Amino acid sequence: MRLSQFHLSTSKETPADAEVISHQLMLKAGMIRKLAAGLYTWSPLGLRVLRNVERVVREEMNRAGAIEMLMPSIQPKELWEETGRWQKFGGQLLKIRDRKDAEYAYGPTHEEVVTDFARNELRSYKQLPLNVYQIQTKFRDEIRPRFGVMRAREFLMKDAYSFHLTAESMAVTYQAMYDAYSRIFTRLGLKFRAVNADTGAIGGSASHEFHVLADSGEDAIAFSDGSDYAANTEMAEALAPGPRAPASAAMAKVVTPWQRTCEEVAKLLGIELASTVKSVAMIGEQGFVLALVRGDHMVNEIKLAKLPGLAEYRLATEAEILAHLGSEPGFLGPVKPLQPITVIADRSVAAMADLVVGANEKGFHLTGVNWGRDLPEPDLVADIRNAVAGDPSPDGQGTLGIARGIEVGHVFQLGQKYAEAMKATVLDAEGKAQVMFMGCYGIGVSRIVAAAIEQNFDANGICWPEPMAPWRVAVCIINPKNDPAVVEAAQALYIDLNARGVDACLDDRGLRPGVMFGDMELIGIPHRVVVSERGLAAGTFEYRARRDAEAVNLDRAALFAQLGLE
Amino acid sequence: MRLSQFHLSTSKETPADAEVISHQLMLKAGMIRKLAAGLYTWSPLGLRVLRNVERVVREEMNRAGAIEMLMPSIQPKELWEETGRWQKFGGQLLKIRDRKDAEYAYGPTHEEVVTDFARNELRSYKQLPLNVYQIQTKFRDEIRPRFGVMRAREFLMKDAYSFHLTAESMAVTYQAMYDAYSRIFTRLGLKFRAVNADTGAIGGSASHEFHVLADSGEDAIAFSDGSDYAANTEMAEALAPGPRAPASAAMAKVVTPWQRTCEEVAKLLGIELASTVKSVAMIGEQGFVLALVRGDHMVNEIKLAKLPGLAEYRLATEAEILAHLGSEPGFLGPVKPLQPITVIADRSVAAMADLVVGANEKGFHLTGVNWGRDLPEPDLVADIRNAVAGDPSPDGQGTLGIARGIEVGHVFQLGQKYAEAMKATVLDAEGKAQVMFMGCYGIGVSRIVAAAIEQNFDANGICWPEPMAPWRVAVCIINPKNDPAVVEAAQALYIDLNARGVDACLDDRGLRPGVMFGDMELIGIPHRVVVSERGLAAGTFEYRARRDAEAVNLDRAALFAQLGLE
Repeated sequence: MRLSQFHLSTSKETPADAEVISHQLMLKAGMIRKLAAGLYTWSPLGLRVLRNVERVVREEMNRAGAIEMLMPSIQPKELWEETGRWQKFGGQLLKIRDRKDAEYAYGPTHEEVVTDFARNELRSYKQLPLNVYQIQTKFRDEIRPRFGVMRAREFLMKDAYSFHLTAESMAVTYQAMYDAYSRIFTRLGLKFRAVNADTGAIGGSASHEFHVLADSGEDAIAFSDGSDYAANTEMAEALAPGPRAPASAAMAKVVTPWQRTCEEVAKLLGIELASTVKSVAMIGEQGFVLALVRGDHMVNEIKLAKLPGLAEYRLATEAEILAHLGSEPGFLGPVKPLQPITVIADRSVAAMADLVVGANEKGFHLTGVNWGRDLPEPDLVADIRNAVAGDPSPDGQGTLGIARGIEVGHVFQLGQKYAEAMKATVLDAEGKAQVMFMGCYGIGVSRIVAAAIEQNFDANGICWPEPMAPWRVAVCIINPKNDPAVVEAAQALYIDLNARGVDACLDDRGLRPGVMFGDMELIGIPHRVVVSERGLAAGTFEYRARRDAEAVNLDRAALFAQLGLE
Repeated sequence: MRLSQFHLSTSKETPADAEVISHQLMLKAGMIRKLAAGLYTWSPLGLRVLRNVERVVREEMNRAGAIEMLMPSIQPKELWEETGRWQKFGGQLLKIRDRKDAEYAYGPTHEEVVTDFARNELRSYKQLPLNVYQIQTKFRDEIRPRFGVMRAREFLMKDAYSFHLTAESMAVTYQAMYDAYSRIFTRLGLKFRAVNADTGAIGGSASHEFHVLADSGEDAIAFSDGSDYAANTEMAEALAPGPRAPASAAMAKVVTPWQRTCEEVAKLLGIELASTVKSVAMIGEQGFVLALVRGDHMVNEIKLAKLPGLAEYRLATEAEILAHLGSEPGFLGPVKPLQPITVIADRSVAAMADLVVGANEKGFHLTGVNWGRDLPEPDLVADIRNAVAGDPSPDGQGTLGIARGIEVGHVFQLGQKYAEAMKATVLDAEGKAQVMFMGCYGIGVSRIVAAAIEQNFDANGICWPEPMAPWRVAVCIINPKNDPAVVEAAQALYIDLNARGVDACLDDRGLRPGVMFGDMELIGIPHRVVVSERGLAAGTFEYRARRDAEAVNLDRAALFAQLGLE
């Protein structure tokens, strides 16, 4: 592409309303333009990147045996009522009435539509497994659309759905999709983690999220340094530490007049935060519960809710706390409650000696508290906290680190949930109708563009991984109006590169070198080649990779070698 | 693609609710499935064809210098109010309220959005001309969606918009798009006509429709056999015939008791329909008007409405007719009206002698009526009829034929209409703000698929033009379970063809030959190659082009020559 024939529209100003770097850089580079809240136009430049992502996704889906199709974006209410999601999906579902007052939704996802397709198309187990996908515009009416295309309302998604006679077949395709996703993100040149998102519920199905790692990511991921274990921090199991240490101190009451948090108490007493214990008061099915985690840990609500009797727990009110413990919050603890309570200790707390806890009396804490001596053993010992960096990996290999990630893909074994609700059956070998098993596999195609920038930028702009770049190489002409020979040499190089399959653009806009270079850096072209009068005289091109500190002068052979051409 | 790994789903039954052949065949071939009124899922098979069309459209748009981008499908009401189309567009505009009660529409077209983009992006005439396009899903809430994807509500469209400083520049890009469209339909292998759709209104802008010719087309197109003149029948000028013939008969009143139409009168009197004259009574600005066309012609309402005083004409009521002519409809004519009337004669009628017209008396007509003798010369002679086959071509070259067509493309010089309404200006060379000129250029990508079938089918199914076919070649295996050598030979051929760039599928489903051949004919594969035990022994493949009556046995070299490979 000759840039004089293209529409580049970069800007020096950092947009005031863009909070994250990818949003800022996409606006500055002129990749996207806002039409309305959560609605973005992809400029010619932006679309080139989006299409690169789309192409890699499509190639790998095809390679994995998935078959592309295309379903309507507008979906009738009736199908969503079959699964109960017309109500349950919530406000993100953009509901629409047509001129005949029939109700529809702009599809945020296509489980209902594809299951309807499958129940009409598939009659025999011989037609299974079937894995179909589409790359299509979706809409989710986010309450607070933000971060540009990272959380837009209208976005491009690849969604795949597979159909199976058995759970085993579902697992096979699930693995094929897992592998395809790994290939996709690897090919796109992104650092990513496949994160176990298994809810662990009985009969629950496997699920993995794919996260692009970036400091700005909304999700915290725990990953092992000794294996490929990775899980959402909230999902990662926190193993039990070694056996409990022996008691070494007597229980004592200490004055903590204003110290209501573990941090404040630790500071006042000059002890480790890890020696303190946080008490969280809640009401479960059986009544009042006190959940204990170490002062440096965070209670994990998802894990708590999985414990017996806590599926629908809520925090206790001040009145309930006062009635059971005799104190106001900030000084709570498990020792000598007024009323019988259930004590649930995190594994780490159960292994502690000499605990520091609230005294159930305003202005006081207890130190040197020990299980079995100063209070009964916990009613329940369980994993009820978030994993943290330094924890042993739950698979027994290595230690956990915590990274931040942006979710760009999700694979899920749906089991029979949708097929059951929508009566999607096939006949098995015995001629008996069987409800199909399903998997679903999503990739946020447009979100990947933003996530890639969050992972790849510097002070001058975007640093695209090569497979995503709008062009791999920019051939820049210095002063095109001065010397026709320079223009000719640049054009020849540009044509040669494209003929060899290297997607190159020619910056023939005649801008000042500084402005031109600034543009090429901002829009993130991986390789810059400058053709100038001086270089031409010396028989060299000036070459600089996007992240290089300095440019170097290379002759044609060296340049081609640098670009991976022999 | 190995068909055992694909999802083909053909059907023998002709769907009851499909009125046109393309809709029937797309359903029988399993290309599309209906989700709801005017909403269709494109199956893997259908999508392959749709993508073929899309690819050709994209390549030719790029070649013509247009730049691809992507605008949101959901558009804010505010932009549509700037052009007044929020109201004017009518019921086809699918209006939507989001969770915050803001109003949007699902874009049926993108003039507003792209003009908004342009007014924000473009500052200088140096950035012009700019021609941007997208290939995107549109929605029009048709009152009566029908004919499958021919008139669906959700459909795939290529829409391009160009921006210019001057009308001259607009005309240059218009011509480039006209040429690109001609290349697109030529490459797709379709018989088509570019039809002049110029409204002829003063200051009006150029416009052409591109029609795929098919007997089932909704539009009638007049085209010359001596030039490339083509126009919508309603738009084609009907030239004046030669000079008026001399009167040869005296005026006479004949009894026509039940004969109210020209056809009935001509039959009763045993004369040519072309000797009779139809009288249409209407009310214009100046009062009662009688418009006269030959009995074998059709009054053209668009042409009529362009005459002075008739811009908002309406048909006369029976009471008005009785008051002015003294008769009820069926026996009307221009001779001796009760009240003064205006007589407008079509050019053909003005050139007639011995007219047969109604006598303005129930049960009677007049014969031998002659201008200037039996009634005054017409108040106005004008072209007020549809062109018909056999008319001389308006460009003076050749004779008109009438064909039926399906509109699949439209190019339009918009002038400054939208840019003016939305204040889209750039600075010219003198630094003065100038309202931009615009062109817009649409192609109904999904409609092309249906239109191509309307033009290319036979009793056995679809006969795809090669560039649109889901696969160019089907390699069919006879009894794959009987002889591994046959399977091997077929696979080798299939792999070889694809390696040479011939998109081939391998029918390895193991179906009976008749069923397999029926499928390949129904889905319209242009070339069928059968690999069988007998052929293998003889060193030949059985080859049949889709429209051939008979198959032939060819050795490998002859087969490859037949497929255009050396």
